[in-house]
Amino acid sequence: MKQMPLSKVFTLIEPGPVVLISTNHKGKNNIMTISWTMVCDFTPRFALTTGDWNYSYEALIKTKECAISIPNASLAKKAAQIGSCSGADIDKFANFKLTPLKARFVKAPLIKECFANIECKITDHIKKHNIFILDGICAWIDEKNKDRNSFHAIGDGTFVVDGRKIKNLRSIMKDKLPTGV
Amino acid sequence: MKQMPLSKVFTLIEPGPVVLISTNHKGKNNIMTISWTMVCDFTPRFALTTGDWNYSYEALIKTKECAISIPNASLAKKAAQIGSCSGADIDKFANFKLTPLKARFVKAPLIKECFANIECKITDHIKKHNIFILDGICAWIDEKNKDRNSFHAIGDGTFVVDGRKIKNLRSIMKDKLPTGV
Repeated sequence: MKQMPLSKVFTLIEPGPVVLISTNHKGKNNIMTISWTMVCDFTPRFALTTGDWNYSYEALIKTKECAISIPNASLAKKAAQIGSCSGADIDKFANFKLTPLKARFVKAPLIKECFANIECKITDHIKKHNIFILDGICAWIDEKNKDRNSFHAIGDGTFVVDGRKIKNLRSIMKDKLPTGV
Repeated sequence: MKQMPLSKVFTLIEPGPVVLISTNHKGKNNIMTISWTMVCDFTPRFALTTGDWNYSYEALIKTKECAISIPNASLAKKAAQIGSCSGADIDKFANFKLTPLKARFVKAPLIKECFANIECKITDHIKKHNIFILDGICAWIDEKNKDRNSFHAIGDGTFVVDGRKIKNLRSIMKDKLPTGV
């Protein structure tokens, strides 16, 4: 995987894709699937909603770090399955034949099969609203994985895959774009 | 527009589309375009990141309400334009030929040209992180507007439109779905 400039990393989350959040806690890797994320800043900073109903919650609280991995649509079935079972019961990497890769700054593993991975430090926890604030500190893109069509959860068990690109509006947006994208 | 069951309303935001946020403050309607939203609960509850760099910020703070409108891809250019100018300078409804409709519970207008509209009360403001918490209290869907393909910002001035639907994973997800979707 090739390192990605931090200035571009928010563009992985801005479109609202289904993501995999990996953690490493008490020597054990785990993955959860979520859609409840948003960009909070270009630095990049992200918010994520989850709570103690989720097995990964303790790992997030205790380790204060994670990786966000972006799967393409070929991983949609695995992502749905990962989101429908608990790391308390199974080793999700082994069970779903995903390959953990060593990250540079966090113990949480990257996921080789995902086209992009973001190493994150958890910098705040707004307990009242179950919101975690994450700072992306390093990110990786798999240049060989050309299928970067991510997918989005509707919330009713169906998903929608990225379709047609609109590229001719960039000139309208240019004054609002951060530097480096 | 037909009223939508509140239990389904989170499914409008879960996929991470570009949305229009309308406000009414000091007798003046305004609209901003944003992508920085997430679902926080099925009730539905949403988070939204914005700050005082945005003209709508004062309206959100003072009125504690807004409407979230979901545009389809035919409105992508207008959404980009709306996001590239300020309500301090122009009347965005008039300038972009959008039609404000009276909402039931909030003074912020619905947008007729959007296929769905959510009336929201702002219930909290996490100033440290520029995050607003919104409770969706009533929502409307335009049953005659069959083009419900929303679009997503990449963040670099380009966008991606909803493409292929994945409907065969619902059985995997069924135990995780809230009632009423």
